[in-house]
Amino acid sequence: MKTLINSTNRELAEALARPTASDRGCREVVAEIITQVRTFGDDALINFNKSYDGDESGKLEVSQNEMEAAADATSTTIKEAVALAMANITKFHREQIPANVEVETTPGISCSLRYFPLERVGLYIPGGTAPLLSTIMMLAIPATVAGCREIIICTPPNPTAELLYVASLFNARVFTVGGAQAIAALAYGTKTIPAVNKIFGPGNRYVTEAKMQVSATGVAIDMPAGPSEVLVIADQTADPRFIAADLLSQAEHGNDSQVVFITNSPAILEETKAEIALQLAALPRKEFAKNSLENSTAILVSSLSEAMNISNGYAPEHLILAVSEPEKLAAAVENAGSVFLGHYSPESAGDYSSGTNHTLPTSGFARGWSGVSTLSFMKTITFQQLNQRGLMAISDATATLARAEGLEGHARAIEVRTQQ
Amino acid sequence: MKTLINSTNRELAEALARPTASDRGCREVVAEIITQVRTFGDDALINFNKSYDGDESGKLEVSQNEMEAAADATSTTIKEAVALAMANITKFHREQIPANVEVETTPGISCSLRYFPLERVGLYIPGGTAPLLSTIMMLAIPATVAGCREIIICTPPNPTAELLYVASLFNARVFTVGGAQAIAALAYGTKTIPAVNKIFGPGNRYVTEAKMQVSATGVAIDMPAGPSEVLVIADQTADPRFIAADLLSQAEHGNDSQVVFITNSPAILEETKAEIALQLAALPRKEFAKNSLENSTAILVSSLSEAMNISNGYAPEHLILAVSEPEKLAAAVENAGSVFLGHYSPESAGDYSSGTNHTLPTSGFARGWSGVSTLSFMKTITFQQLNQRGLMAISDATATLARAEGLEGHARAIEVRTQQ
Repeated sequence: MKTLINSTNRELAEALARPTASDRGCREVVAEIITQVRTFGDDALINFNKSYDGDESGKLEVSQNEMEAAADATSTTIKEAVALAMANITKFHREQIPANVEVETTPGISCSLRYFPLERVGLYIPGGTAPLLSTIMMLAIPATVAGCREIIICTPPNPTAELLYVASLFNARVFTVGGAQAIAALAYGTKTIPAVNKIFGPGNRYVTEAKMQVSATGVAIDMPAGPSEVLVIADQTADPRFIAADLLSQAEHGNDSQVVFITNSPAILEETKAEIALQLAALPRKEFAKNSLENSTAILVSSLSEAMNISNGYAPEHLILAVSEPEKLAAAVENAGSVFLGHYSPESAGDYSSGTNHTLPTSGFARGWSGVSTLSFMKTITFQQLNQRGLMAISDATATLARAEGLEGHARAIEVRTQQ
Repeated sequence: MKTLINSTNRELAEALARPTASDRGCREVVAEIITQVRTFGDDALINFNKSYDGDESGKLEVSQNEMEAAADATSTTIKEAVALAMANITKFHREQIPANVEVETTPGISCSLRYFPLERVGLYIPGGTAPLLSTIMMLAIPATVAGCREIIICTPPNPTAELLYVASLFNARVFTVGGAQAIAALAYGTKTIPAVNKIFGPGNRYVTEAKMQVSATGVAIDMPAGPSEVLVIADQTADPRFIAADLLSQAEHGNDSQVVFITNSPAILEETKAEIALQLAALPRKEFAKNSLENSTAILVSSLSEAMNISNGYAPEHLILAVSEPEKLAAAVENAGSVFLGHYSPESAGDYSSGTNHTLPTSGFARGWSGVSTLSFMKTITFQQLNQRGLMAISDATATLARAEGLEGHARAIEVRTQQ
């Protein structure tokens, strides 16, 4: 962990610069995979499953029987943990259902903005070392709460029983297709996999690149994605053991996880670094954690407001405020994905079970993007109804503006109704 | 106008297929423009202004003096029309400001979702034949209502006084840069033009392609765009003169405008076609209208619910319900940008002054995207605060889920706080 003390703006900017993943090779591989899926459909998917995942089954959809068997194979401990997390996540996301807006802007002119669920949504759930049960919950719960009619999950071949069990709780259809090819299938559809209205979910750089490429053709996606991040702001009341554990829980994600630690207390800075060394030694995924800590930064500042300025500039995915008056500091937050207040709010709580969503903007995208919420699974449609009186009230102004834009036909569509 | 009677699903699908604009040449030109702007900044912009727009001024920003002179040069008629439209649009968009959500998901666990304005937004306002005063209003009003701190407008060199006058109402900074180069400047910033958090606004295919390309690098945009569209559903109570005027007001936009007319009345079908011929002859932009009408479709159906099914499948940008009971039919709308109810609600009203936003999803994107609203200029951040009791209540479940995902460090970040 680099340590910055009395650093210049330039040193800060360099230390907090994120890795840029401009990878032409990846772009070309993904473009070719998308072309294959659009051209050859299911055949392409079955071939990719063979060559990339060693799956010779030739099958793409998980059967109802397999889903039921998976539920039987899942332990009661897991089921209870899932139930508790689901209860909290559902409670928070249900409150997010927005109210329709209706306004009479002028007597005789009624305008409304109404919310509708997206009809069919696609969730990508990565395979790999960790079966992301929590990600299914974080996406399928808001989809269900929003009222989406169909949930389509794509995940690499041979998903765990636990993953299928969680999927079964949402009546989701599960297709065993991974990588960029899954994103292509969800975006454009194949004979077996239906095209969806919006694609959600994390993945490796091929999955991410595929989401960006299909989004450039108009397919809606949740957000751009990069390596996971945490920024911790601590004052002298913080417990170095807690901070160290939080930083390590982020660092264990992967070699490219981003970890930033800012404090106004020299003592807390030193004690936390000692605690990190201690806890790191006993961590199963210590290799990942060690690598990502090497690229991470600890910053000593003179005040908490200086710390918050740095944080707002960085726009972290996760922001932990390990300070004595977290509400006060939280009022100054401008850019972040999710904020954890006080000493008993570890990021892990939000990752799984407190109720908030863990699908959040990384890489500074929090400046322009929001994390996943119930709204992410809805769209708005506006409605307006004018009566003759309402139309008369705006007819002159509307015709003037239309003519100022050179659109005579627009003016006439008003006047054919008002000048009779 | 093609006319379909007793058509098969296949005939319908063919008639309603939108032109697909996959244009490799355009993609390459835009990619090169973006590279130029990222590499050479203002110099590239000044060069593009010279070569594309014949602007030799070497200037990029409109001065305060020029803004004030523009206000003086704008007629009172225009100013009054703008004021009326602004009042209605502001009223409707102010009601859309969402309320923050706060929930205690479990005793001791408080979760909130809070809305924040985007800090700096970029609006692209096309030049060309028609100065789009209305588009500035449709974007700058929700930006202002949302609380955005800075509004940056890019528009091609030599904007009209009226356009600058409207921009001045929002304290917007105006830069005279058009085309793909404007989008690149807003996305990545130059010395003169600051990078923005999100880019809004319509444009030609180069502008649209540039928005898609910068969005693939994580820059937020309002939505993908295509040619403007209207779908009119009419029953026997409709007035063929009104329908004809509405269809023509859409058709006059450009050669590629999409116009669909569906009715269950053979008489209305015939009378409307006759009215179109009559009104077309007297329209200034009749060449555009004629060309786009040639690619458009009239469909005779046996019932209004059949008409609505076709409309929901097509997902039109604008949907006019010229029927006797529009509220009843509107209840079945699933996919559309904006819906106009009854015989006195022409699309022109929503284009300018009723209060709804005219920045809407085209090309069927309404299935997964929303039109611009106040929410488009905001982002959400979640906050959570747990006390010891709250953390204890979820500690076992959270540790179980973390370990099921192989993330021991996540479990320990909980247990370091609860197992003391």
